[in-house]
Formats: sequence, C-alpha cells, structure tokens
Amino acid sequence: MSGAPGFVRVFLMVGYNERRSQPPGNPMTTASTHHDSVRAVEWRDDALMLLDQRRLPGETALLRLENVPAVVAAIRNMSVRGAPAIGVTAAYAMVLAARAIPDCEPAGWLAGMEAARARLAAARPTAVNLEWALAAMMAVAHEHPRDQQALLAEARRIHEADIAGNRRMGELGSALIEPGRAVLTHCNTGALATGGYGTALGVIRAAAAAGKITEVLVDETRPWLQGARLTAWELHREGVPARLIVDSAAPLFMASGDVGWVIVGADRVAANGDVANKIGTYALAVAARYHGIGFMVVAPTSTVDLATATGADIPIEQRDGAEVFGDLDLPASVAVANPAFDVTPAALVDVLVTERGVLRMPDTAAIAALMSGPGVGGV
Amino acid sequence: MSGAPGFVRVFLMVGYNERRSQPPGNPMTTASTHHDSVRAVEWRDDALMLLDQRRLPGETALLRLENVPAVVAAIRNMSVRGAPAIGVTAAYAMVLAARAIPDCEPAGWLAGMEAARARLAAARPTAVNLEWALAAMMAVAHEHPRDQQALLAEARRIHEADIAGNRRMGELGSALIEPGRAVLTHCNTGALATGGYGTALGVIRAAAAAGKITEVLVDETRPWLQGARLTAWELHREGVPARLIVDSAAPLFMASGDVGWVIVGADRVAANGDVANKIGTYALAVAARYHGIGFMVVAPTSTVDLATATGADIPIEQRDGAEVFGDLDLPASVAVANPAFDVTPAALVDVLVTERGVLRMPDTAAIAALMSGPGVGGV
Repeated sequence: MSGAPGFVRVFLMVGYNERRSQPPGNPMTTASTHHDSVRAVEWRDDALMLLDQRRLPGETALLRLENVPAVVAAIRNMSVRGAPAIGVTAAYAMVLAARAIPDCEPAGWLAGMEAARARLAAARPTAVNLEWALAAMMAVAHEHPRDQQALLAEARRIHEADIAGNRRMGELGSALIEPGRAVLTHCNTGALATGGYGTALGVIRAAAAAGKITEVLVDETRPWLQGARLTAWELHREGVPARLIVDSAAPLFMASGDVGWVIVGADRVAANGDVANKIGTYALAVAARYHGIGFMVVAPTSTVDLATATGADIPIEQRDGAEVFGDLDLPASVAVANPAFDVTPAALVDVLVTERGVLRMPDTAAIAALMSGPGVGGV
Repeated sequence: MSGAPGFVRVFLMVGYNERRSQPPGNPMTTASTHHDSVRAVEWRDDALMLLDQRRLPGETALLRLENVPAVVAAIRNMSVRGAPAIGVTAAYAMVLAARAIPDCEPAGWLAGMEAARARLAAARPTAVNLEWALAAMMAVAHEHPRDQQALLAEARRIHEADIAGNRRMGELGSALIEPGRAVLTHCNTGALATGGYGTALGVIRAAAAAGKITEVLVDETRPWLQGARLTAWELHREGVPARLIVDSAAPLFMASGDVGWVIVGADRVAANGDVANKIGTYALAVAARYHGIGFMVVAPTSTVDLATATGADIPIEQRDGAEVFGDLDLPASVAVANPAFDVTPAALVDVLVTERGVLRMPDTAAIAALMSGPGVGGV
C-alpha cells in the first residue's frame, strides 16, 4: 500500500459553534486574511498537504501526500475537489513525481514525468484545470530537466496566480452586484475549491465584504453535499449570513423576488461559452432565466478550453451510484444514474467573470478575444 | 406515554435483492394485484395499522395505533405521508376517536369528535385531503351519533374510493402517454402515499403495464428521500425499469430528449389550478416548460380545494432544519430554510388528471365545472 496517503488527524472541531468569534486554530489557515481564512492545498515540509474535504465539517484533517499515486487517489476520491484546487494539487504532484524518478538522463527523466502527467490527467475527466496545470509543469520540465526547484517554483507560481486571479474576479464580479438582495450559489467554489479565496464564492466574499448582499442561499448540492459541508462551513466561519436549502428549493426562493444573482463556478468553459459545472448548475440556469435573474459564471481563464468547441464535447464524469444511495438500504439492483456534472449552454449565461475581464452573454468571438488578448486585469 | 404508538417490528428485508422475482411476504401486501402490491394504511383487528415509511426500504415495520394522539404523532413525524394516505389515515383515526369518548349524550359525544377532528387537522397544514376526510367523517358523526360501525363503514368507503379513483386516474393519465419514452417523477405518489395504487405513480403503473414507457427517472427527493426510499422501492418490487437520480439532475435528463412527461401528484390544488406539492415540483415544472415537455399533475378531486383561491393562499409547512442537516456535523448556528412544499402556478400545468376527468391547461372555470358536475368518470 505504498500509494496510500499518510493520514494525520489534526483535531476535532468539538464545540466549534460556541466559538464563532474565535475560529479554531487550523494548520491550513492563512494569516488572518479577512474573508479568506482556509487553504485546501499547501506545500509544506517537502510534501503536499491536503485538507481532507470528505471529512469536513465534522473534522479538520490533513493528508500528507508524498507520491503521485497518493495524489491520484486523493483527486479521485474527492479528498480534494474543485477545478482550480485540483489544478494546483496536480502542479505540486509533479514536484513529487520529479523527486521519485531515479537519477537518469534528461530523456528518461522526461519520460517519467510524462508518465506521471498521464496518470494525474486521468484522475478526473471533466475539469480542464488539471490538464492546464500539468501542461504548464511539463513546459518547465522541458526547459529545466531534473530541476526540482524550478518545478516547485512553477507550482507555487500557479498557486499564487490562482489566488490573485480569484481576488481580481472577486472585485470584477462584486462590481456587477446591486446592493440589498440575496445571492444563490451551488456546490463549493470557495477557498476549498481553489488555491484560495474562491471563484464564485470569491465574488460572494467580496460582495459580502462590501456590504452588498443580504444573505447567501446555499444549495446543499447532492450527492456530495459540497454546499452543506463546505460552503456553509466557509461562510459560517467568516460570519457571512447564509441559509442552507435543498437544491430543488432554489426556484421557490427565486420566485420570492429576493434573489439578485445566481453565482456559480465552472469545471470547463468551452470555446463557445458553454459551461460544464457541478450537476444542478443547469437547473439553476434554466430557473434563473425563467425568473429574469442574472446567472453569473466565475472561472479563471485556466478553466477555458479553446480545444473544446462546445459543451457537447466535454466529457461528463459518471460516478458510482453508491454516492446517491448513501446509507439507504436499497436493493443493489436499483439502478442509479450519477452524472457529476452538467452543461449549461452559453445562451443561459448572462455574465462570465474571468481574471482577465468580464464577458456579458459570452460567445465564441468574445471568448477568443479574451483568450488572445492581455485582458482587463491579467495576472 | 399513552399516546406512543405500539411498535411491531415485522421482519427485516435481508437478502431482498436476491429475491427480486419473489417479493418478500408483507403483512400489508394485497392479494397479488398486478402492479399494486403494498398498502400504507389498513384497518385490522380493531386498530389502525400503518406501514412505518420512515424505516423503508431497509425495514418493513408496522405501527399499530389505537388512539388519536398516536395518529397525530405518526402524521407529524411522517410515519405516514402523502396527501391521500394522510386523508385515509385521518378517517380511520376518527373511528378510534369515537371509541375513546366516554358514554354520554350525543351533544357531548359530538363535541369530543370535534376536538379529535381539530387535533388531526392540525397535524400537517398543506395537504387538504386531511381536512376533506375529516369533514366527511364528521358528516357521518352528525348523522349517526355514537355509531362506530357507521364511522368505520365511511372510513372504509373513503379508502376504497381513493383506490378506485387512483385506478381511474391511472387509465386516464396513461391514455395521454405516447409509447416509447421515459417519464420523470418526484417524491412518492404511489401505493404508499395513497389508499393504494397511487396518483402520479398510479398513472406510471398503468403506463408501465401497458408497455408504454422505457423507464422511470426517479428524483431522490431531498430532504426526506421519498423518491429513493419509497418510489424506487415500489417500482423495483414490481419490476418497472427505473433509475434513481439526484433532484438537480432532472433538467439534464430532460435536455437529452428522452423524457416524454413529468408526472407528479399534489397536496392541494387551488381553485385557479395552482398546485402545492413536494418541494422541488416547481423546479420540475419550470424545467419541463423550458424543454417543451408535458407536465402532468395527478390528484383526486379530494385534493382540490375551492376554498383556496390561489396558490398564494396555501399554507406551506416549514419543517425542522435538522431534516436537511442529516448526519452532518454542522455548527448549530448554520441557518437552514426547509420548506416542505412549493407552489406551481397553473400556467405551468399542462394537464390535471382527476378521477372525474382530465383538464388540459386547468384554470378557474374548468376546475369549477369539474367540481360541480358529475365529471367524466366519477367514482
């Protein structure tokens, strides 16, 4: 079991709700940055540390990963999830890969790196950030063969650029929000889903910090409950007013007139603006349009894949039905369909917020221009 | 604890999935009626027997209830649920009420019956069948004071009429379905939700028996998972092809083009045709309209409430947030909104199927005509 991650239970969050004004110490907590106080991924003591997101919110536990198979397992079993966080994780994993390759000629070393890249790229199919980060790491590997420090520097750069991009998207997205209404979000797109701060939740953080939103309606996000377990937890830690709802209740709250924006992330944006994101996103886009509510997708340009023409070309991961069954004692022969993602057509996207700028009603031409130019606020 | 229901564990369904062709014996099973093999409510041995729906599908357990407080508790805690099943349950509960009133003058006896009616009516607010059944029982009480046999006969009549109405709705609804496509349903509207056979699931049973549908897509129906626990179980018992999905995935399957109809029940239909039903129904109606898919509501006329002008006048039950939290170890101060129902406006209802006939695009005039006349197939 050399591929099994080392597991370190750090502490149980007993009594957390009594200490709301004093969030518990967290080894992955950043130095008191307002509205961004947790990290999903970190490089520390020559290893990759992941906050095990399967155990939140009940336990804050760290995984120390020292080799590629352990990282592949952690991505596949959703210890780490969220397209940007997976990308950052894969970048650090390439440092681990470089270290594990026996001393040999550059060609042999590069072949080993290519093998690691392939294993990591296959861990989950839908998010394109994984491939994007691996390509960036391989470019450095070709330029500086066997140079672990150069690879680590590139992984750190990718990580820091992700956070900086998220802060920029937070500003750009928040600027679109008129004060005094609620926003609704799905899944987790926060610090836990990214290098830090968050994409859609970064916009919500920025808007909350600016006093613009009355509350956040948080879809619980079945079957993995990322909304209930992670987003509600992140918002609660920071004192942002939020209410948890079941996914299917979202249109009821839209009909109430209180919701100003639906704000979501993305796992892949196709060249024509179609958006693959967590299952249930398409349902929100359809309902938002029906109610005349703005639908905002927040994603860094590393999530845009010009090689994917339309949403129909995005591979949709089908996961094990046991994730839906949960603890139910259903007959094993009851069939389950468990697509992890769906595709929202560009026509339902009112705004795409990237770190390079904002596109209203994104289409092929606008996305091509965004990706070829320096953009508004390039990182 | 005189109000606590007597609890009888009947058997565990161990190994059920190995015996698909031979459904396990069930004390509430009807005599081998094709496509309708379970009863949620039964009067037996001078008591009201309920199949405890909180324990399905893992356990088939019966509750024996002998007094009104026990029935109120069973309705409130969802041991029995589904608007028609609650109505039938309340009718039998009035027999229990009659028995418990000390021997006294008719006026005193009727006052006791009124008190029982009030307690039962307050058990859950949204479904109108409860009030409807209680009114029918009180009419008999006034006509035949202290006559327990007359009350039992009326309760049995209500129960049998519900099943007959469901079979009639099954025929009427199935006739609308073109063969060769899937249908999608929400919550549980089957034998378990009614006197027997089911409303929306009755239509699906009839259509499946007629070989008209390729499969049933079953929304799991958060937070109580009636779809996963009850509908998937009912369909599986009867060999109807079905796949369980998370609620938010429904629009993805609608977009595939495979879904011919969305078919749901109702807890109350207002005079103008607005429909209160399980949370998530409105989301399906919005998505069905967006995809040009027919949206069929199946409900007996006992669910139509002419005293409720529009959906805005229907009380929507707000349940405990703990039902959404589940086993998650979330801080207690995380807020939850847990509306149990939502309202679908009549404009999104393509067909309302009742036991008296079918209304296309129901509105106030059509519903008034339906309720005042003998109808197409009155029971």
